[in-house]
Amino acid sequence: MSRRTLKLGAVLLGVGGPGQHNTWLDPEIPANASVDVNWYIARAKEAEAAKFDLVFIVDSQFITRNSPNHYLSRLEPLTLLSAIAVHTGNIGLVGTLTTSYNEPFNVARRLYSLDHISGGRAGWNVVTSGDAGTAGNYSRDEHFDYPTRYGRALEHVQVVRGLWDSYEADAFPRDKESGVFLDPEKQHALNHRGEYFSVVGPLNLERSPQGQPVIFQAGDSEEGRDLGASVGEVIFTHAANLAQAKAFRAELRERAAAKGRDPEGLLTLPGIQLVIADTDEEARSKEDARLGTKSFDRALKELGRPFGWHDFTRYDLDAPFPEIGDAGERSFRTQANSIKKLARDNGFTLRQVVQHLIDAARSPFVGSPETVADTIQHWFSEGGFDGINVTVNAPSEFALFTDRVLPILRERGVVRSEYESDTLRGNLGLPVPANRHTDARHPAPALAP
Amino acid sequence: MSRRTLKLGAVLLGVGGPGQHNTWLDPEIPANASVDVNWYIARAKEAEAAKFDLVFIVDSQFITRNSPNHYLSRLEPLTLLSAIAVHTGNIGLVGTLTTSYNEPFNVARRLYSLDHISGGRAGWNVVTSGDAGTAGNYSRDEHFDYPTRYGRALEHVQVVRGLWDSYEADAFPRDKESGVFLDPEKQHALNHRGEYFSVVGPLNLERSPQGQPVIFQAGDSEEGRDLGASVGEVIFTHAANLAQAKAFRAELRERAAAKGRDPEGLLTLPGIQLVIADTDEEARSKEDARLGTKSFDRALKELGRPFGWHDFTRYDLDAPFPEIGDAGERSFRTQANSIKKLARDNGFTLRQVVQHLIDAARSPFVGSPETVADTIQHWFSEGGFDGINVTVNAPSEFALFTDRVLPILRERGVVRSEYESDTLRGNLGLPVPANRHTDARHPAPALAP
Ligand SMILES: Cc1cc2nc3c(=O)[nH]c(=O)nc-3n(C[C@H](O)[C@H](O)[C@H](O)COP(=O)(O)O)c2cc1C
Ligand SMILES: Cc1cc2nc3c(=O)[nH]c(=O)nc-3n(C[C@H](O)[C@H](O)[C@H](O)COP(=O)(O)O)c2cc1C
Repeated sequence: MSRRTLKLGAVLLGVGGPGQHNTWLDPEIPANASVDVNWYIARAKEAEAAKFDLVFIVDSQFITRNSPNHYLSRLEPLTLLSAIAVHTGNIGLVGTLTTSYNEPFNVARRLYSLDHISGGRAGWNVVTSGDAGTAGNYSRDEHFDYPTRYGRALEHVQVVRGLWDSYEADAFPRDKESGVFLDPEKQHALNHRGEYFSVVGPLNLERSPQGQPVIFQAGDSEEGRDLGASVGEVIFTHAANLAQAKAFRAELRERAAAKGRDPEGLLTLPGIQLVIADTDEEARSKEDARLGTKSFDRALKELGRPFGWHDFTRYDLDAPFPEIGDAGERSFRTQANSIKKLARDNGFTLRQVVQHLIDAARSPFVGSPETVADTIQHWFSEGGFDGINVTVNAPSEFALFTDRVLPILRERGVVRSEYESDTLRGNLGLPVPANRHTDARHPAPALAP
Repeated sequence: MSRRTLKLGAVLLGVGGPGQHNTWLDPEIPANASVDVNWYIARAKEAEAAKFDLVFIVDSQFITRNSPNHYLSRLEPLTLLSAIAVHTGNIGLVGTLTTSYNEPFNVARRLYSLDHISGGRAGWNVVTSGDAGTAGNYSRDEHFDYPTRYGRALEHVQVVRGLWDSYEADAFPRDKESGVFLDPEKQHALNHRGEYFSVVGPLNLERSPQGQPVIFQAGDSEEGRDLGASVGEVIFTHAANLAQAKAFRAELRERAAAKGRDPEGLLTLPGIQLVIADTDEEARSKEDARLGTKSFDRALKELGRPFGWHDFTRYDLDAPFPEIGDAGERSFRTQANSIKKLARDNGFTLRQVVQHLIDAARSPFVGSPETVADTIQHWFSEGGFDGINVTVNAPSEFALFTDRVLPILRERGVVRSEYESDTLRGNLGLPVPANRHTDARHPAPALAP
């Protein structure tokens, strides 16, 4: 096994960082990039040329007029990734699909099709849908409560993984001489009957190059961390500072170990915002300018999102942060609670909360190429993360990372110079889960239940 | 408007015709073609070179060990079509998605994403899932009964079309000068509350090149024909002989007219099996040889499919066709009933029924290139169909049609020589439905409700 190296993900058209609802104003980014397949293919090729492990596509299924601009109109992640798959050859393709509003049979099939089409490069970012309003688009009056949402998520992933084991690797002799297409002993029904799903199987798709596409997971609550520790292989998260990043990674590894898993089979990749310029000073001014494009009014509106798009514009900005009951209870609860706590602990007004959130959007990864390389290497060696998910918007900004930061990290042996495998799982150095049905004959470590 | 010409569809790896469960034995077809994206892309390019209007991907979500071989393991249609989209430029891309086990919001979004990715070439084959066993893969004890199945289908399509109208064509000024991304007056929620679905909307994807991807429909029962007449723009069907084909087309056009639709907005494209050789005699021997590969045992097993995979091997072959109660009632009921009627009317034994079905699999489109061209032209001019959906398996067989039959039909003006439009809708000569929200300002003919 080769020396542990930093994993690299590219979040294409990531929205969420400061001023990123305004990325469409960037002269380098076509205003309609979020619906332009060629824009995505071009970025994926650049990431592949830089030997990135994966591209990552986030998602949501609910919008309001105040949603970040690129969210108002964007391509469905798996449809997009299939198009990218046939114009790339090595880079991993990770798509977000919610367990709350998709059937496990359909999810299993679509991701497995992508794994076949891409020759083993598919990954699934398992989410439960943070926007409570999503329920209204799926014939439900209300979003699931947290225990149900995450209970369904765990069972959903288990069903999907079970369906992926429907066929043993050698189930299809397809011997034209003897006329034998299938070895029926190697086709396995699932016969799952659980609390939330009943799925007989088998899947109508043979074992794929990865066998099991890689499970990514994003969710921050107690329930979310438990799900990640149970079935996640890569955790997508945020990281405000090194101490927090270390604590998060250590906690997830401990939780996984407590479930009988090898913690090396769980990688933490926070999404990070890079701001790179020739000098540290220039980089800081660049970030100031970028933060400056985020107007207070816009931030006030977006504050509503974790609270189920609660309308904060109707309150007095200089009165104490409003009592809004349990708004957000079925939305991004963890984020909503931490904002409430921030207001309470500091006695903040609404204006102070919004201003605090704008200021807190500063990235720890700002500076010259040397500085950024140093910071990344430091966090990595201190156990802050196993890799980074870099937000990719303007190509020239991404090139500052690939052309000026990566060579430094390669020189230092932090990042590998070539793809090591044909599959995403292989490049990430993750163990290959055995097929549960082949297991008995060829024992191999299974993932935790 | 140009003269009416014959429309051309290519059903890639179509299974269903005589002996086609054995297509994998063909030396020209890779044994794993059904999971090989490159095989599909190559066939789609050939069809595009021959100026076909569309490729067509059938589907099912339930298999047994007796399912046709290529069904045991195949790629999910939309994932596959997205990969084909970015390696072709003109040909339409029609995928089968069931209304019984997919959420309308997800269907709307995936097809609309394909329409954006392909520049306006997406079509949806609306089915309700014929295999009753599909229910078991979607947490249901039983498949929906016919009225529910088709009631859901109609409402599902209406919701999807409503979501496709979420944004008016000019809803996104995306003016970098003024900073205006969206014109909120042109974003419309759906607020649908129906018998089967409640969907608030709007869709998170702007108006696509076609505005409304083309609706294909396949289903033969009273309920199925009613659905086709209500929302179908192209009907995929079978055609055993000219009289039956004419009657079917005439009936569908009448039904559509009775619903206030222009019957010219509804095209009938039966799936046909071509058997072409230098002479009529050689073609007939070729068909004999092909039918010969269909063993009686295999046909006996496959007889079970319309009856919900009822096991017919347990009956005496030479006793009268067994009384099997309502097996098939929630499966392919129309087909099951017509087989029961055949047995009853003729007093057939089980053996005679199976033998009859094997014999009935003969195609009307067998002969030399001249003969096949004559037959197609005759059926077309007699009003038997508006186009044909040709099953594409071995490339050399397909080439006999494109290289030897098509030139004759072109010479006679039956088939056009060039694409006439950038979109599938345009090539099929179908009217462009107006956006319901723009309608008031710019009146235009709407589709029937
Ligand atoms: C880093 C990160 C990325 C996320 N990405 C998505 C996403 O793309 N789509 C989505 O629906 N939810 C996403 N989520 C939301 C989670 O699925 C979850 O619903 C939300 O975080 C609320 O749950 P929690 O309280 O467990 O965090 C993300 C969450 C985190 C922490
Ligand atoms: C020509 C034709 C093609 C069909 N293709 C499919 C298909 O690809 N997938 C599917 O699930 N059902 C398919 N169906 C089945 C229909 O969706 C329907 O469920 C089935 O025919 C039983 O309904 P009916 O009695 O209305 O025909 C097809 C039916 C016909 C007539």
